[in-house]
Amino acid sequence: MVEVNKSDGQPEAGMALIIPNSNGNKKDEVSLPDLSRRMQEFATARNWDQFHSPRNLLLALVGEVGELSEIFQWRGEVPKGLPGWSAGDKEHLGEELSDVLLYLVRLSDICGIDLGQAALRKIRKNGIKYPVEKCKVSSNKYTAYQ
Amino acid sequence: MVEVNKSDGQPEAGMALIIPNSNGNKKDEVSLPDLSRRMQEFATARNWDQFHSPRNLLLALVGEVGELSEIFQWRGEVPKGLPGWSAGDKEHLGEELSDVLLYLVRLSDICGIDLGQAALRKIRKNGIKYPVEKCKVSSNKYTAYQ
Amino acid sequence: MVEVNKSDGQPEAGMALIIPNSNGNKKDEVSLPDLSRRMQEFATARNWDQFHSPRNLLLALVGEVGELSEIFQWRGEVPKGLPGWSAGDKEHLGEELSDVLLYLVRLSDICGIDLGQAALRKIRKNGIKYPVEKCKVSSNKYTAYQ
Amino acid sequence: MVEVNKSDGQPEAGMALIIPNSNGNKKDEVSLPDLSRRMQEFATARNWDQFHSPRNLLLALVGEVGELSEIFQWRGEVPKGLPGWSAGDKEHLGEELSDVLLYLVRLSDICGIDLGQAALRKIRKNGIKYPVEKCKVSSNKYTAYQ
Repeated sequence: MVEVNKSDGQPEAGMALIIPNSNGNKKDEVSLPDLSRRMQEFATARNWDQFHSPRNLLLALVGEVGELSEIFQWRGEVPKGLPGWSAGDKEHLGEELSDVLLYLVRLSDICGIDLGQAALRKIRKNGIKYPVEKCKVSSNKYTAYQ
Repeated sequence: MVEVNKSDGQPEAGMALIIPNSNGNKKDEVSLPDLSRRMQEFATARNWDQFHSPRNLLLALVGEVGELSEIFQWRGEVPKGLPGWSAGDKEHLGEELSDVLLYLVRLSDICGIDLGQAALRKIRKNGIKYPVEKCKVSSNKYTAYQ
Repeated sequence: MVEVNKSDGQPEAGMALIIPNSNGNKKDEVSLPDLSRRMQEFATARNWDQFHSPRNLLLALVGEVGELSEIFQWRGEVPKGLPGWSAGDKEHLGEELSDVLLYLVRLSDICGIDLGQAALRKIRKNGIKYPVEKCKVSSNKYTAYQ
Repeated sequence: MVEVNKSDGQPEAGMALIIPNSNGNKKDEVSLPDLSRRMQEFATARNWDQFHSPRNLLLALVGEVGELSEIFQWRGEVPKGLPGWSAGDKEHLGEELSDVLLYLVRLSDICGIDLGQAALRKIRKNGIKYPVEKCKVSSNKYTAYQ
């Protein structure tokens, strides 16, 4: 278990994650296995493991993707960085993005998939599928690549 | 940047992530900021930043959720751990879970949302919304809580 | 405009659809073009045409699919006909199915696609793709066909 | 069963739908019950009823919504009527819209929901929820209504 230190000086079990990096500095980076453990503890403490079957979790994920979409549905095109969005809108967005992530992490865990390692493999595979040189010169034909 | 070491003794830039934890041991835990950086580098190297608007990425995410659903669609109920699934089926599942994750990470980044910190806040908020004692005694009425 | 007759004897503009079929009998069958016209009238009456761009409607559709999924998410496998569901549950389900349909109809209309004719063409195409004889003998390998 | 007449003078069982309307004219309007019957016949002919459980069909629907989203994902904002789209792009779009519709119709049928009647009820309910006068004067605050 990693060391936990809160900026208010109060240790709080499992809610903040501070990892010393290779230079010995503290780094505040949330890991996928950490989220997985928290979700497991959360479910076990509430007797919810019984409900966390793969297809139940998948449908819950789809439900959260729907809520995420609702945030963007009537806005027309939205620029990067969300200029003009209120702090409340951004907080709401952060919550819906998180809900998708948390069910995705839980679904992976229940299926026995190491999501973080799978993601690294997928990035590597994508790198081979979309070679830099070929993509760069054809960036106006992006759709042909994805 | 974290130190990278591959088990085959060959350093490979940016594809494996080994973080020394607070006890000084190496830990192989993939972090969300690391995935975010990799996705940024991937897009920049290919001139793809121009395509990564919030709603483009959201629709790409929905597309990947569709592919994830297709894996489960004709199977009826699927038990935890996916007994009876072939190695190929599981690898395919890992790839689709990863595709959802990678677009989610990228969407969050483009929106200026720190996904990892948002997820920690959401777990905390859920903990208040669903108190352990109340949920435990009513675990047969889960739907009433979510 | 089709003739409208309500069973309570009160004509109500545009809310029931009774079409005499080829035998001269009244038939109460809702058509896709009729739903399309109703959605157009609904939007125009409220000055909502300005919001009904293709991608806005698509994201609204995804939102409704999410709500539909939420109905099924914690139930485990659900048998045909929904035995044990309350009348309220079924009404709620009918509303969410309808929301998906109505946005789908509207999206098709805004894109200039005749959804009903496209659906007939797709059924015909599927019939060629999945020949009856080949599917029937291999019905235990359905996943191989879809 | 309705009378079927093809414009090329060749009767083709069940693939075109021409309904005489109340004025005695032929009308080419595809109805939801007709699609429901075609889907039932399609499944029965192939021994596929065994696979058409509510949650299987729901996940298949989500898969098709994903394919629909992929068509729009890298295009940025798309104007009404899809100017500049090729005939092939539009045909592909029609097919994906149809796939969503056909699974929606089938899911409704398997759940025992009359989708067409439910949609009419939902339009009526929406009309009460969003009164014309209130919406018209506030059309710049649409998000407040939906």
